[in-house]
Amino acid sequence: MNIILASTSTLFGGEYLEYLREELIKLYEGIDEVIFIPFARPGGISFDDYTAKVQSFFETINIKVKGLHEFEDKIEALNNAKAYFTGGGNTFLLVKTLHEENLMSVLKQNIENGKPYLGCSAGSNIGGQNMKTTNDMPIVYPPSFNCMGLIPFNINPHYLDPNPELKHNGETRETRIKEFLTQNDLKVVGLREGSWIRKVGDKITVEGSELTRVFEKDKEPYEIEPGTEL
Amino acid sequence: MNIILASTSTLFGGEYLEYLREELIKLYEGIDEVIFIPFARPGGISFDDYTAKVQSFFETINIKVKGLHEFEDKIEALNNAKAYFTGGGNTFLLVKTLHEENLMSVLKQNIENGKPYLGCSAGSNIGGQNMKTTNDMPIVYPPSFNCMGLIPFNINPHYLDPNPELKHNGETRETRIKEFLTQNDLKVVGLREGSWIRKVGDKITVEGSELTRVFEKDKEPYEIEPGTEL
Repeated sequence: MNIILASTSTLFGGEYLEYLREELIKLYEGIDEVIFIPFARPGGISFDDYTAKVQSFFETINIKVKGLHEFEDKIEALNNAKAYFTGGGNTFLLVKTLHEENLMSVLKQNIENGKPYLGCSAGSNIGGQNMKTTNDMPIVYPPSFNCMGLIPFNINPHYLDPNPELKHNGETRETRIKEFLTQNDLKVVGLREGSWIRKVGDKITVEGSELTRVFEKDKEPYEIEPGTEL
Repeated sequence: MNIILASTSTLFGGEYLEYLREELIKLYEGIDEVIFIPFARPGGISFDDYTAKVQSFFETINIKVKGLHEFEDKIEALNNAKAYFTGGGNTFLLVKTLHEENLMSVLKQNIENGKPYLGCSAGSNIGGQNMKTTNDMPIVYPPSFNCMGLIPFNINPHYLDPNPELKHNGETRETRIKEFLTQNDLKVVGLREGSWIRKVGDKITVEGSELTRVFEKDKEPYEIEPGTEL
C-alpha cells in the first residue's frame, strides 16, 4: 500500500496542500493523473469548483486531476484510475455517498492493490476502520459507519487539545474519544493539524511536525513522536 | 404539552441543574416522582451513580427520582410514570438505546399527552425532529436518527460562537449547522448555555439569560431575545 492520511488539507495561514508538497511528489511518483473524490463537500462550493481548487495545486506538481462526479460510471472510473485523492468536508455525507453508490469497497480494493491514495480530514476518516471518531455533524444518515480499514485503527483528524480558558460545558475532544473507547475496543490516533499517517507496504508511521496523541481502551492516552511506527 | 429542553444541565462554575431550579418547580408542579433516563451516559459514572446525582438535586425540590434502567419492563415504567427527565451524555448512545428498546415512541406519546418532560443537552436533542444537529461523536450506530419531534425544529445545544483567536481549521459550529441546512430544510435553534426551550400547551418560547441564534435554509442566521415565541 502507498497512502497518506492527513489531519488537514491546509495549515492555518497556509495555502491548500502546500505543507504536503514534498510528500505528495513522493506519494504520486510516476503518476500523471489523479481521480479526485469531492463528495464530502456539503455546499459552499460546487463539486466542479472544489475539483478546480485541487487542480490548481496539482498542476504545480505536474499531475492532472479529474473529479469522480464527472463520470457516468463511477465504479469503472475508480477501476481505471491511477491514483486517488479524497478531500475534506462532512464525513457523514462522504460515507453515505460512497456506500450508496457502492464505491467504498471498490476504492478500498484498488488502494489495497497498490494505487496511491491521499485523504485529508474526512478523506482520512474513511481510511480508518469506521467513521465513529469523526468530528463532523451527522447531517445525513449513512447506511453504515464502516469505512475502508486501510489501517488497523481509527483517526481523529484536526485533533485539538482542551482549552482550559473556555468557560463552556461541551465535551472536549479527549472526552469524546474516551467515550468512543467505552463502546469500542479500537485504537484512536488523534492527528493534530500538520501531522499525517504514512503507509508504505505494511509499514505505518506518523509523520509531520507535531506530537500525536494515541488513545487505547483502559490505558492513559500517550504522545508519540513523528516517525514512530504504529 | 409541558416541557423544558435546556442547552446544558450545568452552568460553568455552577451546581448541577441549579440555574433551572425555579423553572423546574413550575414544570413539575404537583408531581412527587420523576423517571430519570440515564442512557446517554457512556461511561465515567454508572447509571446508578448518575441517577444518584439527579436524586440529590431533586430532593431539594421534594421530588423522588427513579432511574429507568432499574425497571425490568421499561415500557410499562414509562407508561406508569408521572414525569420525566433525560440527562446529557452522548446523543448517539441515547438514541440507539431508545430505538432498540422501543422507548422513543412510548416516551413521545406520554409527553404529548401532557406529562412534564425535562431534557438537558442530549436529552434536549431528542425533543427535536432528529439528532442531525447534535455535537456528539458518533461512537455507536443508531438504527435511525429520528427523534420525538416535540417541537417543529431541531436544537443545537451548547451553541458556541466562533473563536477568532483559534488557529485551527476544524469547522466552526455555525459552519456545521449551515452544512446541515444544505441537506435538510429544517429550522435549527442554536441554544447557548444558560438558555432553554419552554413549551406549554402549543406555545413555544426560548428562555434564559442569553440571546439565541436561529438558522434557516437560505436565510442569514439571526438572534432572538429571551421570551421570543418560536
